[in-house]
Amino acid sequence: MIAVGDLTAVKQALRAQRIETPSWAYANSGTRFKVFPQPGVPRTPEEKIADAATVHRFTGVAPSVALHIPWDKVDDYGALTAFARDLGIEIGAINTNVFQDEDYKLGSVTNPDAGIRRKATDHLLEAISIMDATGSRDLKLWFSDGINYPGQDDIRDRQDRLAVALKETYDRLGDHQRMLLEYKLFEPAFYATDVPDWGTSYAHCIELGEKATVCIDTGHHAPGTNIEFIVAFLLRAGKLGAFDFNSRFYADDDLMVGAADPFQLFRIMYEIVRGDALDPAYGIAFMLDQCHNIEAKIPAIIRSVMNVQEATAKALLVDRDALRTAQQAGDVLAANAVLMDAYNTDVRPLLAELREDSGLDPDPVAAYHRSGYQEKIVAERAGGTQAGWGA
Amino acid sequence: MIAVGDLTAVKQALRAQRIETPSWAYANSGTRFKVFPQPGVPRTPEEKIADAATVHRFTGVAPSVALHIPWDKVDDYGALTAFARDLGIEIGAINTNVFQDEDYKLGSVTNPDAGIRRKATDHLLEAISIMDATGSRDLKLWFSDGINYPGQDDIRDRQDRLAVALKETYDRLGDHQRMLLEYKLFEPAFYATDVPDWGTSYAHCIELGEKATVCIDTGHHAPGTNIEFIVAFLLRAGKLGAFDFNSRFYADDDLMVGAADPFQLFRIMYEIVRGDALDPAYGIAFMLDQCHNIEAKIPAIIRSVMNVQEATAKALLVDRDALRTAQQAGDVLAANAVLMDAYNTDVRPLLAELREDSGLDPDPVAAYHRSGYQEKIVAERAGGTQAGWGA
Amino acid sequence: MIAVGDLTAVKQALRAQRIETPSWAYANSGTRFKVFPQPGVPRTPEEKIADAATVHRFTGVAPSVALHIPWDKVDDYGALTAFARDLGIEIGAINTNVFQDEDYKLGSVTNPDAGIRRKATDHLLEAISIMDATGSRDLKLWFSDGINYPGQDDIRDRQDRLAVALKETYDRLGDHQRMLLEYKLFEPAFYATDVPDWGTSYAHCIELGEKATVCIDTGHHAPGTNIEFIVAFLLRAGKLGAFDFNSRFYADDDLMVGAADPFQLFRIMYEIVRGDALDPAYGIAFMLDQCHNIEAKIPAIIRSVMNVQEATAKALLVDRDALRTAQQAGDVLAANAVLMDAYNTDVRPLLAELREDSGLDPDPVAAYHRSGYQEKIVAERAGGTQAGWGA
Amino acid sequence: MIAVGDLTAVKQALRAQRIETPSWAYANSGTRFKVFPQPGVPRTPEEKIADAATVHRFTGVAPSVALHIPWDKVDDYGALTAFARDLGIEIGAINTNVFQDEDYKLGSVTNPDAGIRRKATDHLLEAISIMDATGSRDLKLWFSDGINYPGQDDIRDRQDRLAVALKETYDRLGDHQRMLLEYKLFEPAFYATDVPDWGTSYAHCIELGEKATVCIDTGHHAPGTNIEFIVAFLLRAGKLGAFDFNSRFYADDDLMVGAADPFQLFRIMYEIVRGDALDPAYGIAFMLDQCHNIEAKIPAIIRSVMNVQEATAKALLVDRDALRTAQQAGDVLAANAVLMDAYNTDVRPLLAELREDSGLDPDPVAAYHRSGYQEKIVAERAGGTQAGWGA
Repeated sequence: MIAVGDLTAVKQALRAQRIETPSWAYANSGTRFKVFPQPGVPRTPEEKIADAATVHRFTGVAPSVALHIPWDKVDDYGALTAFARDLGIEIGAINTNVFQDEDYKLGSVTNPDAGIRRKATDHLLEAISIMDATGSRDLKLWFSDGINYPGQDDIRDRQDRLAVALKETYDRLGDHQRMLLEYKLFEPAFYATDVPDWGTSYAHCIELGEKATVCIDTGHHAPGTNIEFIVAFLLRAGKLGAFDFNSRFYADDDLMVGAADPFQLFRIMYEIVRGDALDPAYGIAFMLDQCHNIEAKIPAIIRSVMNVQEATAKALLVDRDALRTAQQAGDVLAANAVLMDAYNTDVRPLLAELREDSGLDPDPVAAYHRSGYQEKIVAERAGGTQAGWGA
Repeated sequence: MIAVGDLTAVKQALRAQRIETPSWAYANSGTRFKVFPQPGVPRTPEEKIADAATVHRFTGVAPSVALHIPWDKVDDYGALTAFARDLGIEIGAINTNVFQDEDYKLGSVTNPDAGIRRKATDHLLEAISIMDATGSRDLKLWFSDGINYPGQDDIRDRQDRLAVALKETYDRLGDHQRMLLEYKLFEPAFYATDVPDWGTSYAHCIELGEKATVCIDTGHHAPGTNIEFIVAFLLRAGKLGAFDFNSRFYADDDLMVGAADPFQLFRIMYEIVRGDALDPAYGIAFMLDQCHNIEAKIPAIIRSVMNVQEATAKALLVDRDALRTAQQAGDVLAANAVLMDAYNTDVRPLLAELREDSGLDPDPVAAYHRSGYQEKIVAERAGGTQAGWGA
Repeated sequence: MIAVGDLTAVKQALRAQRIETPSWAYANSGTRFKVFPQPGVPRTPEEKIADAATVHRFTGVAPSVALHIPWDKVDDYGALTAFARDLGIEIGAINTNVFQDEDYKLGSVTNPDAGIRRKATDHLLEAISIMDATGSRDLKLWFSDGINYPGQDDIRDRQDRLAVALKETYDRLGDHQRMLLEYKLFEPAFYATDVPDWGTSYAHCIELGEKATVCIDTGHHAPGTNIEFIVAFLLRAGKLGAFDFNSRFYADDDLMVGAADPFQLFRIMYEIVRGDALDPAYGIAFMLDQCHNIEAKIPAIIRSVMNVQEATAKALLVDRDALRTAQQAGDVLAANAVLMDAYNTDVRPLLAELREDSGLDPDPVAAYHRSGYQEKIVAERAGGTQAGWGA
Repeated sequence: MIAVGDLTAVKQALRAQRIETPSWAYANSGTRFKVFPQPGVPRTPEEKIADAATVHRFTGVAPSVALHIPWDKVDDYGALTAFARDLGIEIGAINTNVFQDEDYKLGSVTNPDAGIRRKATDHLLEAISIMDATGSRDLKLWFSDGINYPGQDDIRDRQDRLAVALKETYDRLGDHQRMLLEYKLFEPAFYATDVPDWGTSYAHCIELGEKATVCIDTGHHAPGTNIEFIVAFLLRAGKLGAFDFNSRFYADDDLMVGAADPFQLFRIMYEIVRGDALDPAYGIAFMLDQCHNIEAKIPAIIRSVMNVQEATAKALLVDRDALRTAQQAGDVLAANAVLMDAYNTDVRPLLAELREDSGLDPDPVAAYHRSGYQEKIVAERAGGTQAGWGA
């Protein structure tokens, strides 16, 4: 019941799609109440990369892995990069961490203490060196900086400090490197976050220059926020750099993308398709950023990748000519129906077919379970310390 | 128990404070379920202006009234301005209305129909002519434009259309005229609003130029939004042009400012004080935008003006030296306590004294009730059609 | 790709499904900003009933229409009932209106004034007389009662008054009559609503007796509320009496059910199926309560009925044995996948087939458009006053 | 500027007020991102009790401490109780913990596994034994139970399991023991919580009997929820047993009570006063439940106690006769003004006087800082393992 004719173009777009998985999603994670460790969880960056490569092996569209420093700190990043390449994947975005050192209790780059700001900024610069070593294109900045109580610190001074650190970091970027500035409404700061919304990130990126773009984490908004509007707006402005995909029912729940509101994910991917921004050449990094606290990690990531694929396939199936005609005619119901027709289509057979064409199993989760990989890592990864957030 | 020494400066700042009241708040208003008319409600722009002048007479800090076109349409704006001046007040912001014509069912300046966009833009230009005639400085733009259903119209195309209309309108502004671009999360559009948040307004204002600034309506945000952050951010960027004050528990409830969360209003006014932006010379228009659906209108507006004054007085009483010291020392509790000390101060005696110094009654609401004005308008305004939103 | 074998039972359940449409959804409606009238809108209760019968004619599952008093007040309810039957539908729930009289400005059954409470309660009793005359089973009570400002009235006294009015009304119910008590977080009251949540409605219903049950309006909750939990809880307690279906992105937007979050509608219908409560014999009234402010009304209602059908079909397709097995095994991903498999199924062919089996057009919206009914009502319903909320 | 005459009664009520502090608030806490340890934090239940006694010493109104099992597990609860008494305080509520054992990953009393449910229920019963040994009256139950994904488990089955565990626990309660059932919208479960709202807790408590009552944690609601309505409703129904006080801007932020919305705290305390439920004899347990992640713990708790006192003093100062008169007259603004007059009063001098009358320092925070206690615990509590949540 596929609505449009040009299935060839749809398939081609789906084949070209790329989704990056995050090293930390393979490690233990939890809530402030409890971390439930899982057997087989990686103990080293290499083991995380091996898991990411496994996800790519079964899905065919996840050929890079984002690193998080210092969680993925190693002595030799060149060797790590080579290790990844041997397994068939690349090093993706380098994520910085300026929230887990005692010094950062009251902020990192926005801390009232100049020495702590220096230390935090140095970490950001160090991350660029790691980008140099790994060939990574994207520096992803998320700041937990903020305040818990009114009056705790000066909101505006903190913006000044933020601007200074961003500028110094930006200036250090190489020609082919970019800065992705993430925003988040709250948590861990509970009253005011220093980069709380897309407007703040956008304003700083405009100030910095063209190598700075906004990263949208789909779980970082106030209730009722229309995320696809932000996508459309930033695409129009040429300032959308990346997604951190996940899903949420309430706060930053970090559940599997598409699990809470698959229709929202479809609407987001529709704006991507409408903006001709799906192709990797456009430059948007489509990344997952999730925490599989109670569900099996690798299968959860495989499923998440598939959820993005399914939403994308539906978005590609929207009959854009019919949509435009109905929109221009002011026919509210007809226009909505065109969108819903695509959404209501079952695209799983199409994606299964596409996988088979590429020599993949049509059901990546089942294939993973049959593969023995899970049993292997449970057996091999006994002893040592499981990786985790180290909070 | 006033915390800081320089009461003279505090009083001076309070004396200089200006709050604009909206003509439509004196008229009938309601919800989609029912408009409850009140006796004595104005029937003409002149009667609205008379009510606004009355509020100024009792409060001493509300010397201007915002108009709303076409609700306040008259043949001779020069005469209307003179009428106002004779009553001791000025014409403030000119508010446009591109949401109550049948043509605007699917949008005004963002409508898919070019003819309707033309008509809407012409209305905006007409409002500037009214500014010319009244000497008004500010053109306030709020667009109800948006869509109710996913797919109904193209989100990004609508931004293009919006930009065109804003540009044409901006270019028509005279040397001493400004554009205030308001944003609103939702209502009357229920899925996507074309200017939903401060980021969207800010981005368009940056594009337009220095005469375009953001207007913050305190009731137009998603739950959990930190409004004082936005205030601080826009002040830093030089892009905060105006407030539409009101309060809300849930959606855009348009209750009396300070009625729902007086602590939030204090935090907002603190950012204004901290940014040295309270003085009328700074250029921010502090306006009310409220709907007194069930409470008596003029006393409600007097009370709202007083609520802003009280929040401002508390903000002025913050011991900024002590605050800075505690902030720099990273003493979370001490810094918060400095702010709370000011907030917990009872500033009503200070404001009463200030009023008496200016020859006003220390209790404006009681003085209004004693004045006989209410009885007079109830008697005089019999017959005719009461003013209202005309929805 | 239908997951379970017993399609016969699925089809039978879908054939037995009943969805009630509301008379007022065929009339004009709007926001507080503007009501956009539509050509062809009914001017009388009879014309509304004719539209409802038309929706039933094309969908086959909407054989009753809810009335709203006084919007649908007539002299002879027996004649109105006969009129409906002649068109093939029944009179459904009787909805009361104690929010549009001047007297109800500060409340109806919870008003501080005993005389107004009496008047409001008398209206509720009158509605039962109308039930007697029409054979309607359900009295649906929604109270706009509440307060806009803290202190405006005593929250607890208002509960006492509410309890008194409910008791008197309940005691008047005949043997085969029921009371449905709706709740709503806010609007038109902006600070405290007298029946704001399911807990309040439930507690009153428990107190009243078995003929009183809770009515869930899917648009009446705080952000983040898990509605399907409430469904499951009330089914377990035997206290779920009815739904008012619609959808929302933010407040009580009253959009077409399934338009904003089709996955949520599916989860709600799954709890209905899981609780064996879909069958009309169980006694739950599945009603629409929507406002088609900008979209064509009859097609919007047809589409809404179809959306409920599609969600129901998916819910019926859940492989409950597989689900239970995965749940018992604690296999989070497998359990979620069973649910998602049903949700991701395209059930439109199944429903089209079902309609054809029943002699209906497989595409009710298209059939309606081809039928000429819209052109007919536009032509015939010229002159007179269009029905609306009369706010 | 105190509004009412009977200051004697106000002072007496404030003198009789009791606020319980939680042992875990003296220990380390944090977010999922990081726990920032503080010097001087207790290492044992005894050290926590010593801190609680210190708070009581400076405030005079915090004579009991809530325990959390197993965080406060000791061999000899009689000895622990005697230790507390020697320091001048009692053991308050016993809090259970069925969320930090590996077994509870998918739930405790609602787990699909019967053996795990047995283990969890046994823990609840064990807590009653600790109540027997300590003389504690209240068993406080908070269940983190819930599910992260739709379909993960059967929502309704979980209610059945919950009811069974509650019943067994309830039946074990002694004559003078009570059960307090807390509810929470979300976290750590991200899709559906088994006791998400007051309605669920209330319904179970009604079922259980008169010894079961609802505990309101002020941070556990959906955005926009009117907490004082719930207070008023539960008082009317005789089912309000306790508060867990804290404050929040967004999710369950666990900030100092009164820090985020002091007006809300006042409105809550007003309903308590209006319901004559402030007196300890009434039986409501007023407890703090906070996490001082970045601020100094003991001063934060002292400040929190003072915030509750200030809100209570303001609530007691409401001129209830004037309020009732205005409410009965339907004078919205006058009624609101009566409430606001009390709220706007600076009650700090009154509370300072009251403290001095009782031989306390008028400024408990300053007195604490001067006391040397902080320096003493920092010095003495070197070595060992600091207490914390142990997540």
